[in-house]
Amino acid sequence: MVIPGIRSIEARRLNGDAPPINERDDVVVEEPLEIRIAGETIAVTMRTPGHDRELVLGFLLAEGVITSAMDVISATYCGRIGDEARENTIDVKLVPGVKPPVDPETGLLTRRGTLTTSACGVCGRRSIDDLVESIRPLAQTDLGMERSTLASAVRALRDHQRIFGRTGGCHAASLVDFDGRVIATFEDVGRHNAVDKVLGSRVLAGEVPCSNRVLVVSGRSSFEIVQKAFSAGIAIVASVSAPSSLAIDLAKRANITLVGFVRDEAMTIYTSPERIGR
Amino acid sequence: MVIPGIRSIEARRLNGDAPPINERDDVVVEEPLEIRIAGETIAVTMRTPGHDRELVLGFLLAEGVITSAMDVISATYCGRIGDEARENTIDVKLVPGVKPPVDPETGLLTRRGTLTTSACGVCGRRSIDDLVESIRPLAQTDLGMERSTLASAVRALRDHQRIFGRTGGCHAASLVDFDGRVIATFEDVGRHNAVDKVLGSRVLAGEVPCSNRVLVVSGRSSFEIVQKAFSAGIAIVASVSAPSSLAIDLAKRANITLVGFVRDEAMTIYTSPERIGR
Repeated sequence: MVIPGIRSIEARRLNGDAPPINERDDVVVEEPLEIRIAGETIAVTMRTPGHDRELVLGFLLAEGVITSAMDVISATYCGRIGDEARENTIDVKLVPGVKPPVDPETGLLTRRGTLTTSACGVCGRRSIDDLVESIRPLAQTDLGMERSTLASAVRALRDHQRIFGRTGGCHAASLVDFDGRVIATFEDVGRHNAVDKVLGSRVLAGEVPCSNRVLVVSGRSSFEIVQKAFSAGIAIVASVSAPSSLAIDLAKRANITLVGFVRDEAMTIYTSPERIGR
Repeated sequence: MVIPGIRSIEARRLNGDAPPINERDDVVVEEPLEIRIAGETIAVTMRTPGHDRELVLGFLLAEGVITSAMDVISATYCGRIGDEARENTIDVKLVPGVKPPVDPETGLLTRRGTLTTSACGVCGRRSIDDLVESIRPLAQTDLGMERSTLASAVRALRDHQRIFGRTGGCHAASLVDFDGRVIATFEDVGRHNAVDKVLGSRVLAGEVPCSNRVLVVSGRSSFEIVQKAFSAGIAIVASVSAPSSLAIDLAKRANITLVGFVRDEAMTIYTSPERIGR
């Protein structure tokens, strides 16, 4: 059965001592949605396509822009006809008198975004190909990581989660070298913040780019997590959980090894599997 | 042992047929951090305090603003001395020639934020009290929800997660009435988007405010999730997972019933427990 929001991709599955097998794997679709009011961008969010009008109206309700559908004249896709990314931009026309959010300092529309703008140029690049095509891939290296070492590193992250252990409400990220030594670990209520803290610790240590390093994250691997790893030159991103479609697209383009569902010595390798040894 | 990033609060624990008990519960601390460059706000993020310099430098690396610590003169807290929220603002001075992100259209600094600006007025209100004091609480109602009905609704969310079932990489949110009937369910790669889609579906149906309704979310309950529920007048927010400190603060102020760790008929009620019946 075809379910919207799912993409079937090719991945490599490792399981204990069994030989690796290539298999089809379902991943959740992640694509940017640009929200405009009267033609001006006010937000970009990474979302699973489908029910975009609901998403936009709910967002505007939560932002305090509208109080009911009576405040809205229309909410329509406004990309070019025939453009594959046409459905990644929605323009909203508000009833006269309903005020969009304006920055009191500048008089301009307040903008929100849950994603990186300057580093990857998401704004104005709504097609996925556009999004990743400007990326210069990481160089290939001879070094790699043993499968069992990676499995141990992912398992060890849990042991480092002191706040999670007490609250159950916290994400974590670690930077680990190819021998499994932990270089930095941070916890934060936000997944992206935990990764930013790892990167920042390397900036302070004068160790950027982080070549021959693995970023281990406690949650899912989204586009933004892989983008952050890329910005620091990190070669492998691993997690106990699932990646999104756009995280895989970016990792493939950037030559980052993206590994998901790491549980004991079973794992799924989505991109650049040559960095993971037996 | 005191661990930074954890706050101990009072909560009510229900477990099967046993009488409710009030107990101390540890929750992860969530507070806004405003990031400035040369005095101008470029981002506000909800984070767990601690290692804020690392967070800011990692963020600037990922945004492509800096490439090493050599690009930074200083990164210091800039709130007023003695202000309890002093450590929620960091100002960064860049080396001359290092360019902050500028919007090509307006020539102004590009701003990012992962949180609601207009609705709750986070920007410029960095103290937690400021943040929630402008909230007008939801009215008290005589209606409530049976404990077993709430437990069933939380369990049922999992059955509705068709994308999650195939990919393991997706969040979900449902709106449920006090009798447990599901009114709307959406899945999305982003937690906030799933909630926005629920709210937007009610905007389209002309059913805002959503009085006597429960928002069930698949992940943790952060400040922003509770804020979105509040914007739609939703009385109960429930989840299988943990809330953050700021989610609890907001729920208390807004008179929203916040329930976490709902597993079978065990659950922890953090605020306004009178809406949950035996």
